[in-house]
Amino acid sequence: MRVIGAVDLGATWTRVAVASDDGRIMAKRQFRTPRMEKALQHRLVGEFRTLMREAGVDSVDAIGVASIGPLSMKEGIILGAPNLGMKRIDVAKAIREFHSGKLVMLNDCNAAVLGEKLYGAGEGVDNIAYLTISTGIGCGAIVDGKLLFGKDGNAAESGHVVIDYKLKIRCGCGGYGHWEALCSGNGLLNLAKLITGRRRWKTPQQLFEAFEKKRDKQAAAVLREAAMINAAGIACIINNFDPELLTIGGSVALNHKETVIGWALKYLSRYVINRMPRIIPTPLGGDAPLLGAVAAAINPPEEASVIR
Amino acid sequence: MRVIGAVDLGATWTRVAVASDDGRIMAKRQFRTPRMEKALQHRLVGEFRTLMREAGVDSVDAIGVASIGPLSMKEGIILGAPNLGMKRIDVAKAIREFHSGKLVMLNDCNAAVLGEKLYGAGEGVDNIAYLTISTGIGCGAIVDGKLLFGKDGNAAESGHVVIDYKLKIRCGCGGYGHWEALCSGNGLLNLAKLITGRRRWKTPQQLFEAFEKKRDKQAAAVLREAAMINAAGIACIINNFDPELLTIGGSVALNHKETVIGWALKYLSRYVINRMPRIIPTPLGGDAPLLGAVAAAINPPEEASVIR
Repeated sequence: MRVIGAVDLGATWTRVAVASDDGRIMAKRQFRTPRMEKALQHRLVGEFRTLMREAGVDSVDAIGVASIGPLSMKEGIILGAPNLGMKRIDVAKAIREFHSGKLVMLNDCNAAVLGEKLYGAGEGVDNIAYLTISTGIGCGAIVDGKLLFGKDGNAAESGHVVIDYKLKIRCGCGGYGHWEALCSGNGLLNLAKLITGRRRWKTPQQLFEAFEKKRDKQAAAVLREAAMINAAGIACIINNFDPELLTIGGSVALNHKETVIGWALKYLSRYVINRMPRIIPTPLGGDAPLLGAVAAAINPPEEASVIR
Repeated sequence: MRVIGAVDLGATWTRVAVASDDGRIMAKRQFRTPRMEKALQHRLVGEFRTLMREAGVDSVDAIGVASIGPLSMKEGIILGAPNLGMKRIDVAKAIREFHSGKLVMLNDCNAAVLGEKLYGAGEGVDNIAYLTISTGIGCGAIVDGKLLFGKDGNAAESGHVVIDYKLKIRCGCGGYGHWEALCSGNGLLNLAKLITGRRRWKTPQQLFEAFEKKRDKQAAAVLREAAMINAAGIACIINNFDPELLTIGGSVALNHKETVIGWALKYLSRYVINRMPRIIPTPLGGDAPLLGAVAAAINPPEEASVIR
C-alpha cells in the first residue's frame, strides 16, 4: 500500500489529508485558507506534520494538490487567483520542506474528475465531466479517456461560458455574461438583485433559507431563474464535451440538491443537442477534489507533474 | 505517393476530390447535394468514377468522408441530419461499390481541424479549434494533440452553446438560445427579424449586400448584434478548449471576413477568461473539410474508421 498526501486548496477552506492508494482517507484536517502567502505556506507544513503523526506515518510516497487557479502546474504555483485576493502563492515551496518525492498539482476540478473516475461514479467510463457549483463554478472533463488541459491547462473553464451575451453584470474574472456571475454562491446575490431590484439577502445561505424555510416568493423566483441558467450552463458542458456521465459537486449544489440540481434538470432538455448523459451529485461529496488530488498523485497526468 | 479520395458532404453542396497524400488536390468536382438517399449514392459513385478518370488513376489507397451529422462513424452512415431533411444516408454503401480499402468517415468540422493541423495553419500546434460559420455553426477541437470525440462523437457541438438562455427562438436542432439559431446563414434571418421586427431580407446574402453596398442602418445593426453573439460563442470555444490557434471557415465567415470575423474579434475580450489564442480565417479556405477528409484518411482516428 502506498501512502498519499492530498491538499484541496479552496477560496474559503483548505483541506489536507493522508490517504491510502485505494482512496481510503486515514486522517483529514480542514482550516480557513490564510490570506497571506507565508501564512498559508507555514500552515500547510504544520498541518501536514500533524496529519502524518495522526496517520502514524513518517513520510508519504506522493503528494497531490488540487487548487483553485489559475496555476503554473509545472512550477507548483498559484498565479493570482481572483477569488483568493493574492498575487502568487508558491505551494510547491511549502511542500518541498517536508517532501522531496513525487508532487503533482492541478486545478481542483481537473483533480475532482480524476477522483470521480478512480474512486467515484466514473469507473470504466471514458467520457466524464465534473461540475462544481460553489464559491465559483468550475468544470473538469475527461474526453475519450483523457483529462483535457489545453495550451495553459485551462480547458473546461465552463463556469465562464456566456449564457447571456447582453448581461451587464461582470464576473469575478472581469468577463461579461458568464454563468458564474449569476449562479455561483456570490453570483446568486447578483441574480437576486437583478430580479428583486435590491439586495434582500446578504449571503446565498439566507436566500436558500428564505425559500426552503419560509417559501418566500421572491426567493423562489430567483432560484427558478438560477435553475434555467444552470440548465443552460450544463447544456454547454454536454454539447461541448459529450460526456456519458456528469457528476455535480460544490457546496451550493450539494447543500441544496433538489433546488439546485433537481430544478436545473427540469429545464435541461430545452438546451441540449447531444444524447443526455447520466447526471448525479458526486458520490464523493465534498471530498471530490481531495480524492482527486490522491488520484492525480497516483497516476499523474504528464502536464501536471511539478518538476522541482 | 499515396492517392486519397475525399468527400465533403454538406447541407447544400457536396465536393469530391482525389488528392495526393501531401494535400495537393489532383481533381475536384462539386454538385448540389441530392435530397434522396439513392440519388445521392448514385451521384457519389458516378462523380468518383469521373474524378479518377480525370486524375488518371484506377483506384485510390484510402477514402475520407467529411460529413454533416449526426453520424454513425463506424457504420459510415448519416443519421437524420436536420439540415438535410433525410432520415438516413448510407454513404459507406455507395463508396463500397468502387473501393474496398481503408474508409474513414467523420464530422465535417472534426475533419477540418485535422486538415488544419496537417495542411493548414496548425502544423506543430497541439491545441487547435476550427470553427465554421455557414448553413450551420460547427466546431472541431484538438486538445493536447488529440481530436475530441466524446461518447457519441459529438464533442465540440459548439454551435449549440446557449448564448441567451431566455431566447424564445428555436434552433434547427430543436433547442433554445443557441448561437447557431441567430448567427448561421439561416440564423441571421432570425436575428434580423428579432431586431427589425420584420422579414426585410430573404437570404443572408441580401442582408450582407444591404450593408456592404448600401450601408443600410438596420442591416448594420443586425450585423453588429451578430458580431457580439459571435464573440460570445467564440469565447465559449476558447474558455472550454483553451486553444492556441482558432481558425475560422465556412461560407458566411469567409465571404464576409471583415464584417463577420473582424467585428466579432472587437467584442471578444469582453467574454474570454483564458489567454487569447491566435485567431485567423482558415488558410485552407472552402477546402478545409475536403483536405480534412484527406488528412483523416491518411491518419485515421480509431473512432472514425468504418468497419465494413
